[in-house]
Order: sequence, then structure tokens, then C-alpha cells
Amino acid sequence: MKKVYFAGSIRGGRQDAALYGEMIAFMEARNCRVLTEHVGLESLQEEGERTLTEEQIYARDMAWLNECDLVVAECTTPSHGVGYELGRARDMGKKVHIFYDLNRGRLSAMLAGDDRFILHPYTDRNDLFDALDRISLEK
Amino acid sequence: MKKVYFAGSIRGGRQDAALYGEMIAFMEARNCRVLTEHVGLESLQEEGERTLTEEQIYARDMAWLNECDLVVAECTTPSHGVGYELGRARDMGKKVHIFYDLNRGRLSAMLAGDDRFILHPYTDRNDLFDALDRISLEK
Repeated sequence: MKKVYFAGSIRGGRQDAALYGEMIAFMEARNCRVLTEHVGLESLQEEGERTLTEEQIYARDMAWLNECDLVVAECTTPSHGVGYELGRARDMGKKVHIFYDLNRGRLSAMLAGDDRFILHPYTDRNDLFDALDRISLEK
Repeated sequence: MKKVYFAGSIRGGRQDAALYGEMIAFMEARNCRVLTEHVGLESLQEEGERTLTEEQIYARDMAWLNECDLVVAECTTPSHGVGYELGRARDMGKKVHIFYDLNRGRLSAMLAGDDRFILHPYTDRNDLFDALDRISLEK
């Protein structure tokens, strides 16, 4: 079973929380284990997780990033945390897939210009979930 | 002369562009050379730099990040690029100072929880520029 680190905005804004949840459920239905499943919970608001300190959140997420087989990030809503995770994941040599909605702004040049990242721009949901299907099922 | 990599949001939103410009000018008046001076130009809009490809922007910024003596980031406006740069700077062993306005939201747990970063939360401009003065003048 493939272990996926899903990265999406929390404190940067939760407008895409429902989409994150759908992407996570979609991968989990295709034999993936998503370590960061909480990122897709609509009950998780911008203030973030309340029962953990910043250091505990950080330590847990970095352990998951180390453990994962691949990273899937939804990058339409700007987020320092997601950018940070992608920079660290790159330096760990992880495979990184980046999704973003072309209708809603431009991807950072730091992400778009890094040839180690696999970019998945989409203009509708079918494009997004077709790509996610291929990623989930590939060996 | 100290070489500073200043990181601020471009495609994530330019609402703090004037503040970035003031921070850059302030450091330059204190014997710092800010490599990423363009981040503070109000003429630079969300679409980013038009005369360079993504790969050219990326290669230039990564060369500057490698070259700098320290990183100063203004992290009030969420940005994938800034988060990415901070993750990479950390892995390069750079000294990183992070500023953010406490009145305008919470800093990402990935940045707040990383004990390698030096955090400068502020509630007014005096706090910000006092800290920036100390950073600019320290050996």
C-alpha cells in the first residue's frame, strides 16, 4: 500500500478543504494510505489543530514526510506550510505531484520552475481526478 | 557587506509590496546588500516577472539563496514560493529570520514549529523595524 503525504493549505485559508477531502478519499479508494488525512477535514479550520503545540505538529508532519512514498499537493490556495513541505520533500528526494487550478491564478515560479516537480495544471475536475487516478494506481 | 535574501509574496498576493519595499530600503541603508530587491517593487504585480521564464526565475533565485549570508522573510501574506524558499534555505543551513503581523492571522505550524528559524512576530511597525535594525547591524 502506497503511503501518500497530502499537502493542502490550513492557516493559509480553508476555501479548498472540501476538494482536499475528495482527493484524499479518492486516493484511499485506490489502495493508497494518506498519512495527512486530517488536511481534508472540513471541521479543521484556519486556526489549525488545537490539541497540539506547533512543535508537535511540526515533528509529526516531518516524520510523515520522511515516511511517505510520494507527495501530492493541491497548490491553488497559497500556503507557507505547503511551500515549506515541498522544499523539504525535494531535498529528501521524494516524488512530488503538484495540482493547481489554472482558472484561479498562477503557480509560484519556485514550484513551476523546479524540474524535480511533476505539475498537474487543471481547468476542470475531470482533468484533476484523471491524473490522480493514474498517480494512485502507478507502481 | 552582508548579503540578504529577502523573501515576500509575489503570486500569492501583493498587498504587502509597499512594506517589503520599506524593509528592503531599511536594510540597504544599514550596509546590507539585498539580492532580491525586486520583491519590494510596487510595479511588480501578481503575475510576476514577465521577461523571464519560470526556469530562469527559479535558477536566479536559487543562486541568490545559495549566495546569501542570511534570509529575511515577511510571512504575513501566504505564499508557496516563500515557504519553498524557507524549506530550501533551512536545508542549506542558512540563518533565517521570519517576520509576521500577529494581528493578521497565524503563522504556519511548519514555520512556527521549526526550531532552526528565528521568529519575529510584531503588532506594530516599531517592533518590526527595531528587530530589523538589530539584524541588519549584527556581525
